[in-house]
Amino acid sequence: MAAKFSISILILTVTLFVSTLTLVDSTYDMWKLSELFPRHPARWQQVASEKREANLAKIPPEWILEPQLLEDGRSRHSIVGDYIEGLLDAKSQYITDMDVPELVARMQEGILTAVEVVTAFCKRAAYAHQLSNLLLEVRFNEAIERARELDNYFKEHKQLVGPLHGIPLTLKDQFHIKGLDTSMGFIGWIGTFEGEKGTGKEKNVESELIREFNILGAVPIGKTTLMQSLWAPETNNNILGYAFNPCNRDLSTGGSSGGEGAMQALRGSAFGIGTDIGGSVSMPASFQGVFSIKPSAGRISFKDAANTGKGQEVMPTVVGIMGHSVDSLRLILKSLISTQPWLNDPYTLQIPWRFEKEYDPRGELGYKPAFGFLADDGVLTPHPPVSRAMEIVKEALQIKGHQLIEWDWPHNNETTEIHASIARGDGCPDVYDAVHLSGEPFVPEITNLFPNGKPRDPLPLPEYEEVVRRMKDYRERYLNYWTSTAERTGDRPVEVLLSPVTPYAGVLPGKYQPSTYTSSVNVLDYASVVIPVTLADKTIDIVSPSFKSLNEEDQINMMSYDPDKHHGAPAAVQLIGRRLDEERLLSLAQVVVESLNDYRSEHEKKGRS
Amino acid sequence: MAAKFSISILILTVTLFVSTLTLVDSTYDMWKLSELFPRHPARWQQVASEKREANLAKIPPEWILEPQLLEDGRSRHSIVGDYIEGLLDAKSQYITDMDVPELVARMQEGILTAVEVVTAFCKRAAYAHQLSNLLLEVRFNEAIERARELDNYFKEHKQLVGPLHGIPLTLKDQFHIKGLDTSMGFIGWIGTFEGEKGTGKEKNVESELIREFNILGAVPIGKTTLMQSLWAPETNNNILGYAFNPCNRDLSTGGSSGGEGAMQALRGSAFGIGTDIGGSVSMPASFQGVFSIKPSAGRISFKDAANTGKGQEVMPTVVGIMGHSVDSLRLILKSLISTQPWLNDPYTLQIPWRFEKEYDPRGELGYKPAFGFLADDGVLTPHPPVSRAMEIVKEALQIKGHQLIEWDWPHNNETTEIHASIARGDGCPDVYDAVHLSGEPFVPEITNLFPNGKPRDPLPLPEYEEVVRRMKDYRERYLNYWTSTAERTGDRPVEVLLSPVTPYAGVLPGKYQPSTYTSSVNVLDYASVVIPVTLADKTIDIVSPSFKSLNEEDQINMMSYDPDKHHGAPAAVQLIGRRLDEERLLSLAQVVVESLNDYRSEHEKKGRS
Repeated sequence: MAAKFSISILILTVTLFVSTLTLVDSTYDMWKLSELFPRHPARWQQVASEKREANLAKIPPEWILEPQLLEDGRSRHSIVGDYIEGLLDAKSQYITDMDVPELVARMQEGILTAVEVVTAFCKRAAYAHQLSNLLLEVRFNEAIERARELDNYFKEHKQLVGPLHGIPLTLKDQFHIKGLDTSMGFIGWIGTFEGEKGTGKEKNVESELIREFNILGAVPIGKTTLMQSLWAPETNNNILGYAFNPCNRDLSTGGSSGGEGAMQALRGSAFGIGTDIGGSVSMPASFQGVFSIKPSAGRISFKDAANTGKGQEVMPTVVGIMGHSVDSLRLILKSLISTQPWLNDPYTLQIPWRFEKEYDPRGELGYKPAFGFLADDGVLTPHPPVSRAMEIVKEALQIKGHQLIEWDWPHNNETTEIHASIARGDGCPDVYDAVHLSGEPFVPEITNLFPNGKPRDPLPLPEYEEVVRRMKDYRERYLNYWTSTAERTGDRPVEVLLSPVTPYAGVLPGKYQPSTYTSSVNVLDYASVVIPVTLADKTIDIVSPSFKSLNEEDQINMMSYDPDKHHGAPAAVQLIGRRLDEERLLSLAQVVVESLNDYRSEHEKKGRS
Repeated sequence: MAAKFSISILILTVTLFVSTLTLVDSTYDMWKLSELFPRHPARWQQVASEKREANLAKIPPEWILEPQLLEDGRSRHSIVGDYIEGLLDAKSQYITDMDVPELVARMQEGILTAVEVVTAFCKRAAYAHQLSNLLLEVRFNEAIERARELDNYFKEHKQLVGPLHGIPLTLKDQFHIKGLDTSMGFIGWIGTFEGEKGTGKEKNVESELIREFNILGAVPIGKTTLMQSLWAPETNNNILGYAFNPCNRDLSTGGSSGGEGAMQALRGSAFGIGTDIGGSVSMPASFQGVFSIKPSAGRISFKDAANTGKGQEVMPTVVGIMGHSVDSLRLILKSLISTQPWLNDPYTLQIPWRFEKEYDPRGELGYKPAFGFLADDGVLTPHPPVSRAMEIVKEALQIKGHQLIEWDWPHNNETTEIHASIARGDGCPDVYDAVHLSGEPFVPEITNLFPNGKPRDPLPLPEYEEVVRRMKDYRERYLNYWTSTAERTGDRPVEVLLSPVTPYAGVLPGKYQPSTYTSSVNVLDYASVVIPVTLADKTIDIVSPSFKSLNEEDQINMMSYDPDKHHGAPAAVQLIGRRLDEERLLSLAQVVVESLNDYRSEHEKKGRS
């Protein structure tokens, strides 16, 4: 029996990678099957393989997909929505289609139990993982056990444990959960604490965020895949391989929180946690058609979690949330803040949830917040589906009477070097060490960080400080510009800024250009909410014959747009709020969502008549 | 006439420095008169001399002290209180003895005009400057002119311009005010914008803080002297020379905001602004017996101001306030925050004044906030007057029923290296350049920064980041400790921590040891309020015969205590609040002040009976 099981796992695993690779564009052959399945595997390959097998072994046998089904799933262009739902029983379908506030309400009413909710999502996550290689860590058993405790509490006290009672979530594999590894995709970190052995901390540390979710009643069910080192906007590592977009398998999930983006698109958990220092939450959310918030630094705790570039604090990594509605992002952020993380984390700001900052049309009679509108940052022209998404939002808001102020800011290009110098000015010796612990290779997406296979020389500290001064200056000029928009609105300054998330309608593996649409948001430490708008449509999204590229990079970017390959890819916009303006930002994101909903109904009506 | 005036200025200036030097301990001969008044002065000496003369020339002739009077003043051991007041007319005495809230109230009632208030303080500041070399920039005329505008506004609108209407202030010479130089004590910066010429910014930039004070109605009357480079806890530069403590001329003002501390002790302005990265506000406030607040980074704007180490943002310089009461500090901080500085400065946090955080015994019935009590940080044992001040506060609070929790934290010593590496890890090339612009020498207090006369090699960026990680770890452990005190109070954690400000009861020129009592507060980014408690008293403040030094530094520190020389020096304590806890901290500082007042009355009663 055990032998039979192992063999089926082996078949499954091989199928998984073979089918993954059949999806790879023939020009994208950077990733070699032979490296993952060599005849005489190296030690690091064995360790990775054992990790994959151990994860599969944590999935209950009744949730293991039949090989034919798996093969079919893996050959599909898209597996989100109807496809993955078709694999589920009706009850799991019903539950996993619900959003966080609704799930909480059903548990509050006693209509659903936490065990039912957590189990349904675990099952869907198990399918998602088998179809797309998403989980570096599986925690179904412990999650269901915890759900049982929550149910008992509810039975006894007639109240929920907290505002996220029984809500299953997944997290990018940077957060420590007792009993699980945190590898961050580094094979050398498996079985260690961030690469160290014998500290007693292995599988024994809990990130502050996990502690807070525990108080709130939320239940982690697994940890998702990410870009090795985090330093590229795709997702790839030597444990789970390259992550393809479940909405369109020709495309990347984006990154570095690509596993989480894909898990949300497949609704394998009710919400997800990623991290972001240059768009690592916003980009995958956008590419996978889900909502996200990347707050300013200091709203969500990142204490006791793994990261690269840990001593870099002038432009810190922030924790972001992905989910299925603005309401849900608001509930999660508000709940986290209600735990007063600043009592445990010196880097979280003592700022409670500020209800008074939320936009409420009844409370601000006659005032219509103005939106900034950045159609194009002058660095890379967005692909047609992205520009169309921007135009849709513009129209939808204008119909509602909101002013849209063209964003006359031609300086985004300055942020490219500022961002790179601050984020990776040290030459990334920590990444080099983490990769070399096991002898695994760098994934192709990050080899450029290590010319000659070694870390670059670090910037001299005085030069680094000069870059920090440039960042300060940039932030000051940007804020001045923002504040000056009061002159153009004739009232208060623009409240939030609409912008593309990326200049591409999805990343064809290996074919991305560095973009400032998101990294500039991190340079500013502003907050950003991603709002899905539409899908790429090859019949209408075509490059205008009058398109003139700004420069070579712009030309390369626009050439990479392939109407056929991008067809069906989600296209989103981001709404950017000033530093620490999350409450206002989310309430205005809700204005955008409602305007879009009305706009769509209106169009559908027209279509019908 | 002009020639005669110049000669009298020359005599005055020479007298000023000769008498300054007669105060110098014979063992403290680092500062050479010959360098300031050589037979053939170098260009930098001429520039410095012209700056001194230009400042004196801005003082109305009727406020110029007679040479005999000046000589007498300069020979006094203490010139604060009765002495300087004795020089003033009755009205100026009456006005300059009032504190900020009272002055505002009198102007609101129309009993005093802004011109009367500003003029009285300018006069007193002029005396203070002549007696102690405090002003790098004089702004009396413009200030009185502005006061006139304020009076006209009040006449016309029957209301004050703002909550600091007509309040004269001085600022450490790091803030830009149109029409004035900002030299920061660097001779090469005179006539430039932070060392640069031809930018059009010379005397033409206004710091954000000045803009805010202008809105609030406060009136800058001058800018005060500071430590060349800011990197030592004394005050000395080649323009005004070494700054002696006006409370006790055997001692240093402390630094780096020593000029501001002395100006407050002499009440030459109603309040003062300094900057602090390691105690540069707290130490001079303590040594001069005035109140101060050093908030966490992000409460007061430091935008568009001069500084050294400008690209260092992980442990930023913060702006602090010195004044004559907790009430007054509260009013000033609250007023500044009311201008919403975050709309202009991206580094100021969007945190309004939080009334709900202020301690109010009526609102928290039956709850007595607990105080932490750090008598000794285990690095340097405080001199007897400091320890006595701590004991006085302890008793005063205990009588009122407050719990004092011994602070069992033996790790302050870790902050020494963290602080130095982050603050000056770059080797201070900016200071080197600023000093070399004019050819002036380094003042003796900072020559140790430049072994062989050159900047040290900067820390390699990865090592610097390692130090930042240690700082993060330190902050986390400290906060954990703080939060854990709930177990000892049996209620909430300790709310604020009582600690010495320095281990010395005043700095004998050149005889200080680096101390962690204040620099650890900056490493933590905590807020701190300095509260004057008592004066050193040679009859009771004697080193215990049982004193055993912890180490050589501790021995040297205690040996530097000289009951005779320190006699009469103010002794203070600091009250430390957690990050961004300013509102709570100030309200509890008020509890300390009131407890001390009652304690003193009680002792006086006993003394009388």
